[in-house]
Amino acid sequence: MISEKMMMLGKKRSVIREIFEFAKKRAAEIGKENIFDFSLGNPNVPAPACVKETIMELLENEDPVLLHGYTSAQGDLRVRKIISNQINLEFGTELGPDNIYITVGAAASLTISIKAIALPDDEFIAFTPFFPEYKIFVEAAGAKFVTVASDENSFQVDIPKFEAAITAKTKAVIVNSPNNPSGVVLSEDNIRQLCAVMAKKSLEFGHPIYLISDEPYRKLVYGDIKVPYLINYYDNAFIGYSFSKALSIPGERIGYIVVSNKMINATDTYAAVCGAGRALGYVCAPSLFQSVIAKCINETSDIHIYKKNRDILYEGLTKLGFHCIQPDGAFYLFMKSMEPDAYMFCEKAKKYELLLVPGDDFGSPGFVRIAYCVKTKQIINSLPAFEKLANEYK
Amino acid sequence: MISEKMMMLGKKRSVIREIFEFAKKRAAEIGKENIFDFSLGNPNVPAPACVKETIMELLENEDPVLLHGYTSAQGDLRVRKIISNQINLEFGTELGPDNIYITVGAAASLTISIKAIALPDDEFIAFTPFFPEYKIFVEAAGAKFVTVASDENSFQVDIPKFEAAITAKTKAVIVNSPNNPSGVVLSEDNIRQLCAVMAKKSLEFGHPIYLISDEPYRKLVYGDIKVPYLINYYDNAFIGYSFSKALSIPGERIGYIVVSNKMINATDTYAAVCGAGRALGYVCAPSLFQSVIAKCINETSDIHIYKKNRDILYEGLTKLGFHCIQPDGAFYLFMKSMEPDAYMFCEKAKKYELLLVPGDDFGSPGFVRIAYCVKTKQIINSLPAFEKLANEYK
Repeated sequence: MISEKMMMLGKKRSVIREIFEFAKKRAAEIGKENIFDFSLGNPNVPAPACVKETIMELLENEDPVLLHGYTSAQGDLRVRKIISNQINLEFGTELGPDNIYITVGAAASLTISIKAIALPDDEFIAFTPFFPEYKIFVEAAGAKFVTVASDENSFQVDIPKFEAAITAKTKAVIVNSPNNPSGVVLSEDNIRQLCAVMAKKSLEFGHPIYLISDEPYRKLVYGDIKVPYLINYYDNAFIGYSFSKALSIPGERIGYIVVSNKMINATDTYAAVCGAGRALGYVCAPSLFQSVIAKCINETSDIHIYKKNRDILYEGLTKLGFHCIQPDGAFYLFMKSMEPDAYMFCEKAKKYELLLVPGDDFGSPGFVRIAYCVKTKQIINSLPAFEKLANEYK
Repeated sequence: MISEKMMMLGKKRSVIREIFEFAKKRAAEIGKENIFDFSLGNPNVPAPACVKETIMELLENEDPVLLHGYTSAQGDLRVRKIISNQINLEFGTELGPDNIYITVGAAASLTISIKAIALPDDEFIAFTPFFPEYKIFVEAAGAKFVTVASDENSFQVDIPKFEAAITAKTKAVIVNSPNNPSGVVLSEDNIRQLCAVMAKKSLEFGHPIYLISDEPYRKLVYGDIKVPYLINYYDNAFIGYSFSKALSIPGERIGYIVVSNKMINATDTYAAVCGAGRALGYVCAPSLFQSVIAKCINETSDIHIYKKNRDILYEGLTKLGFHCIQPDGAFYLFMKSMEPDAYMFCEKAKKYELLLVPGDDFGSPGFVRIAYCVKTKQIINSLPAFEKLANEYK
């Protein structure tokens, strides 16, 4: 009677949510400070001052009818100009406002881009470990989700495996760098090889294979790491961006899609993006926050806190004998489970009040995700618990 | 290569948008005050003071990490409780927070409700005149859109025609009262008959036929008109509400779905709504505005202005010999074209700088929509132009 598929999707709470609910229960029992909850990727650093200041200023000075009114469906022209200019300045691109479509956050950037290009039987490739919603978004658009295992030491794209996975039905490839859940940033060299394979295969199969780059963590990188801007490496590319993590406003749902100006049939494809947004019920992105990001586009939350957390955690865990992938960005650390079954490992961790997420849902069994967007104190206090956990395997 | 359907949807600017763009151009030529633009349904009355006050207060007193953070996917529990309590108080229902799913506005309420129940080959019925996006939303979910002509004098549901249109494939019926574009409110008697037919046909075909009530204009009614609350008349009902018009915040994208507690398999259906929201990329509704509506839930913009506009316009046009449907709600007036082709009529109207929308896209050729959410002065000043238009047909 109803859609069984949608019902199952609604009922199947994600593993992350389950752990989050457990954490709340356990905190009530033994006190929040005694729980080491590393389950949720919710920014814990407040938004930069600019966000509050801008909202106050807009409320004081703008006509509320305009401030809270509909914008055009693809986003306010003035804001789209600011976004395209900022990207051009930063990455030397030549985008115009009509290459930008403002969205209700990164998830909407993905569902809209996918819906714009998906035809029945199409295949969308993603690399393990991947954000679990990708599968849901691809399948909701009626296409098939295909995964390719990354190199298991570096978590860079395994180029031969990738090449072997491309078929005549491959419509697009989804990349996510900095990656959730591994924190890994794809190297420029790896990206060049990836794009070369895509170009070759596009030619071989006689149709473009699109690149969809999901980049909510672009601004969260540590040290002198550079995240290559993919439309400078591949023409048929969409970039999905979100201000959620950079400005610590994940609940406000604001981001954008870049449809590369160098894409084949860029104008038609941009129209398809507009059409997909319309079909999915996105009338426009929240108008107040369109104005906010226009003003705060060059701001970032204080990411030094995340860097400090990463350093303490990575160093601490490595010293304890854990095998960790060095995260260059985002606020996740991907760690090898000390037994093959990561679920069992996470259960053992729970004994020491350590709440970790098994990598299985991300397509990488045998790993766990540790979200370090938490108080630094929690990380320091958790290390003795991690030590006890490690001792179980000695 | 891309989805042709989505591209066409993105390229086909709506007739309303075309007129809106023409209005901007013409205003630049002869001055805005000389154009009588009745094309857009954009509230022109500012948001009630409560909206600004609440935002200011939240920014001053709340932790920004929580204020702008993710809420649960179905909306913050506290806010859902406030919504269900308010509905229970007003309509004597027995809803709980788990019957409420907070959405990114009325369009999302519809796409999510439809996606939750649509299966291939399903039919969704709407009555003319209807909001044109209904067709797009139903077809995007892979179902078939079926229209039934309303009674052409009263614009109430034509019950025999409706009954004849229901088939074994009918999954749901979409109603919209107060109606865009006619402003008509369905009478309680008409609703009772509609629901009786649906109950009878559900029994006959052995499966529920759902009622989806799209109610963004519920609070915009004039005089002592009552808009019946549909879950009190029919169990298998979804209500899609939006704060866009009542609080004059259409750009902020905030509304909700009610899944009736009396619906068959209500828990599963609510889960399907959650699943559909997830599949379409709606992570949560904008968090700041979830808190705003919690505080302003009993407020409404000053709708006396719309009532005044309606009275002047309806009286003025009727006196001039135009045949108008009396609008009891929303901010639209539906008027009979003075020639069979409403497009031709609208072209003639343009000569007098009157910008009206042909009813064809709403499924009602031979009518035009006049959106009176404009300055009262514009209405008064436009009447001589309407007189000249009427004289063309004498």
